Amino acid sequence: MLNIFSLFNDCPETVAYFKRLGDIKQGKNNDKLRGHSITLMYALQNFVDHLDSPADLICVVEKFAVNHINRKISAAEFGKINGPMKKVLASLNFGDRYANAWAKLVAVVQAAL
Amino acid sequence: MLNIFSLFNDCPETVAYFKRLGDIKQGKNNDKLRGHSITLMYALQNFVDHLDSPADLICVVEKFAVNHINRKISAAEFGKINGPMKKVLASLNFGDRYANAWAKLVAVVQAAL
Repeated sequence: MLNIFSLFNDCPETVAYFKRLGDIKQGKNNDKLRGHSITLMYALQNFVDHLDSPADLICVVEKFAVNHINRKISAAEFGKINGPMKKVLASLNFGDRYANAWAKLVAVVQAAL
Repeated sequence: MLNIFSLFNDCPETVAYFKRLGDIKQGKNNDKLRGHSITLMYALQNFVDHLDSPADLICVVEKFAVNHINRKISAAEFGKINGPMKKVLASLNFGDRYANAWAKLVAVVQAAL
């Protein structure tokens, strides 16, 4: 949820992509936002679990990309997550090395968009 | 993947809901089907992890339901998964008690459709 709020703060235009979630200012009290955030964590875990199986990683990333293609999210728009991701990682004492690894994974999703 | 093949065998009309996946007869060699099946397992894990937190379970189930609402899958159509689920569980020596527990969870999804 930290990640998504950082995205909304840094790139306010991205709030428009999440209209379905309603009033995001409610934070954890917004059930749709909470359901979205929890589910996102499982998607990220899915990616991490398959880092050593590139053929399966591509399958799951492409499945993830489909939802974004359907909502016409471009690769450039999707890439906006990298800044917030870097900030969240830094706040947890994970430096550029980790942010760069995540950016590579984001690039795999971007390639599918 | 066992579950989804059992669904296709027992309810052949459901194949039409999965057109995006292409030729499902290819099994594991079909990347879209593999990506879908792996991602489904993470969704099921998400549900299981939240069984003891009903408020969060409802959030994640409703997020899951959205994808099905968008594709106009009715509660009755979604319920077709129960037969195959029971068969797969039985093949793994999990009896009616387990199949009934899953059917209850499926009912939570159905209530959101």
